[in-house]
Amino acid sequence: MQDYAGYKGQALDLIRRAGASIGDKVKLTRDRESVEGLLMPRAAGREDTQVVLKLSTGYNIGVKIAEDSRIEIVGAGAKPTLSKPPKPASLKGLPQVTIFSTGGTIASRVDYRTGAVEPALTAEDLYSFVPELATEADVRAKILYSLFSENFTPTHWREIAESVASEVQSGVSGVVIAQGTDTLGYCAAALSFALQASPVPIVFVAAQRSSDRPSSDAATNLVGAVSVAAKAPFAGVFVAMHEWLSDENLLVHKGTKVRKCHTSRRDAFRSIGTDPIARFHIETKRIEILQKDYSARGMSSRLVCNPDFDSRAALLKFYPSMNPSVIDWYVNQGYRGFILEGTGLGHVSAECFPSLQRAVQKGMFVGMTSQCLWGRVNMNVYSTGVDLQKIGVHPLEDMLPETAVVKLMWVLGQTDDRAKIEEMMHTNLAGEISPRRLEGPENDRAY
Amino acid sequence: MQDYAGYKGQALDLIRRAGASIGDKVKLTRDRESVEGLLMPRAAGREDTQVVLKLSTGYNIGVKIAEDSRIEIVGAGAKPTLSKPPKPASLKGLPQVTIFSTGGTIASRVDYRTGAVEPALTAEDLYSFVPELATEADVRAKILYSLFSENFTPTHWREIAESVASEVQSGVSGVVIAQGTDTLGYCAAALSFALQASPVPIVFVAAQRSSDRPSSDAATNLVGAVSVAAKAPFAGVFVAMHEWLSDENLLVHKGTKVRKCHTSRRDAFRSIGTDPIARFHIETKRIEILQKDYSARGMSSRLVCNPDFDSRAALLKFYPSMNPSVIDWYVNQGYRGFILEGTGLGHVSAECFPSLQRAVQKGMFVGMTSQCLWGRVNMNVYSTGVDLQKIGVHPLEDMLPETAVVKLMWVLGQTDDRAKIEEMMHTNLAGEISPRRLEGPENDRAY
Repeated sequence: MQDYAGYKGQALDLIRRAGASIGDKVKLTRDRESVEGLLMPRAAGREDTQVVLKLSTGYNIGVKIAEDSRIEIVGAGAKPTLSKPPKPASLKGLPQVTIFSTGGTIASRVDYRTGAVEPALTAEDLYSFVPELATEADVRAKILYSLFSENFTPTHWREIAESVASEVQSGVSGVVIAQGTDTLGYCAAALSFALQASPVPIVFVAAQRSSDRPSSDAATNLVGAVSVAAKAPFAGVFVAMHEWLSDENLLVHKGTKVRKCHTSRRDAFRSIGTDPIARFHIETKRIEILQKDYSARGMSSRLVCNPDFDSRAALLKFYPSMNPSVIDWYVNQGYRGFILEGTGLGHVSAECFPSLQRAVQKGMFVGMTSQCLWGRVNMNVYSTGVDLQKIGVHPLEDMLPETAVVKLMWVLGQTDDRAKIEEMMHTNLAGEISPRRLEGPENDRAY
Repeated sequence: MQDYAGYKGQALDLIRRAGASIGDKVKLTRDRESVEGLLMPRAAGREDTQVVLKLSTGYNIGVKIAEDSRIEIVGAGAKPTLSKPPKPASLKGLPQVTIFSTGGTIASRVDYRTGAVEPALTAEDLYSFVPELATEADVRAKILYSLFSENFTPTHWREIAESVASEVQSGVSGVVIAQGTDTLGYCAAALSFALQASPVPIVFVAAQRSSDRPSSDAATNLVGAVSVAAKAPFAGVFVAMHEWLSDENLLVHKGTKVRKCHTSRRDAFRSIGTDPIARFHIETKRIEILQKDYSARGMSSRLVCNPDFDSRAALLKFYPSMNPSVIDWYVNQGYRGFILEGTGLGHVSAECFPSLQRAVQKGMFVGMTSQCLWGRVNMNVYSTGVDLQKIGVHPLEDMLPETAVVKLMWVLGQTDDRAKIEEMMHTNLAGEISPRRLEGPENDRAY
């Protein structure tokens, strides 16, 4: 056998010498350091000198081995077992919440032997996996997709929006959307524009660690999101995720002001330039309000669903020596607009000016945001900003670049009228633009 | 007169009714709120309903006026006066530090009447503006450019690197580079690669508020940067900027791990995923070491200068429905590589795979970083990452996207050898890749 679970060369020799099998709990020693974990398959296999271990934290790491590395078996891998608790006695009187599952870590289990991701949880599994749900809400679960969120497009946003709208219109107390974290911020922004005047909370939730891991945030996040959807006094589109590493709290973020700011930590999601709307206390299930300027639950009598997006809008992050011809390329491809992620207060190099001029003349909407992410663009301070405004580039206040490109796709899906597009982009429709404070920018909260 | 300092329509009427002139201190009342500031020219002039005021914080704001708005004059604008202090008695025995001025806010004054940015400070002005410098170092100042940093390209990086190298080789105790904040992170990364094994500190510094503003950080940042350049026990390329809003401390960041994270605040610069190297206490001028794994001053006997960059490297930030053809466009333009700013652990949509495959087959280097900014890419966890690695996409650990594209430009400037390019991109050359900790990612400092 030349190849074993993806291993070859030096790594394979080491594993064979130890007599270890995939799934075994092993101790790998290198120099004077050692690390224990479950031996995992080697999926990528670019290097012959790496062994993949699943740590007790549930996290997979690739350990580089050297001449003096040793592996010893310290135990057989214990697979988690799932015991189904009895069905909740009665859900009568509890608020009705619909959970849409679209894929991602929160809805997946990783098989220890193959490393494969298993399909999304079914509706029936939910109370079994997370018995606490039965105290929070009368839950219905529907599987929309089983997709990694990096593959979502405006077509998925449209379908999710329509599915949520139909549930809200049927009278549920709230909706939860379980999704992969990768583009969750984009999707939450998309639904914030597509679904306005919602009378109930629409809560996105995800997990950074899958449910087979001791460190999983899947159950706590799901209970929190369902509880917020069922009982929160506010309405609209939100994201509920861990506040810190510990299992104490979740934060509930506005759908247009949140982004994933860490690749792997459970507290990866952050409100940018604004406070989160609420804190959910996991043990007491209390919802602590952090921002009082919200739309109250039930204030609107009917949700408005406008789910059309036009994906002929691009996001361009500027960097030194960016080739301005890429702007011309987008114009020639028939794009209708783009969002610049400029530097500082909203700048790009003067070399880009002629191409931007041409884009504007061809009728494209060009909006400016900042790669700083925090703070507000201000194109009146330096001549670069003034010149860009003269060309027709629109400063988009403190809109996140990611939210801005989603909004532009949505606005372009709503109208062909140039003046209307500009007006909508400059108008705060779903909390994406914070009001300017007269006192200047040094008081920004939550930086 | 139909137009006055850029004002027209409603805003012009309001200013005329008040009899106010540009530069006057005025009070603008709108609804029940009022704000005081110096009346500034209206440079951009897209709207007839905005008045620009310079607040006492030094910050310009555009105030939207309404029917009921009023302006009253509350005083004449006081221009700051500069009195030259006597020349320092003796600089003998102080460490020699060379300051290169390249432009930006730190080297500019804004004319109250015209809003124009005046040219960079000359060498002779320095001790006059910042008398404290005379206690820190024997300073020589050289003007390289007077440019906004958004217009910098690898050609400028090369020239700055060569100028710095020549000073270091002449035996100075340290070098300071004063620059605009917009692309300062990129430039600091560029010099970190171009100038290795420096025996002395090379310290980038900037200001978020120009020196005519009461809230200016120009003088404190400059004193701190010069002091660090003159006396710090560490060597290499760093960025020194305000730690908080107050004038208590600066932080000294590694040149490859720092980015501008706020459009306007003085504490905009942050070390990402690592601790800053030191804290500079403004009052006591003490340098407090925060990270001990630095290269010590004087350990290297000779700086190595390799200032070549190849700008045929692009940065592509992924977003949902990104058009994969833009990748083909870069290939067709003769680019030699690009950095993807993917989602989460290092992903893009499966729709991009064929174009990425083609790019790799054409010999391009494709590196993956994360738009999360914090955390490390890990392309062994999900099948998307595994597939991307099979295609030949290189996971770049915890390298910042901005640092990665600068590094790629530099690596492509050093060699044409494909294997060498890959090896260099995966090797930590200037602190751009933090060591992996066996315990997993939840212990990341400084998130």
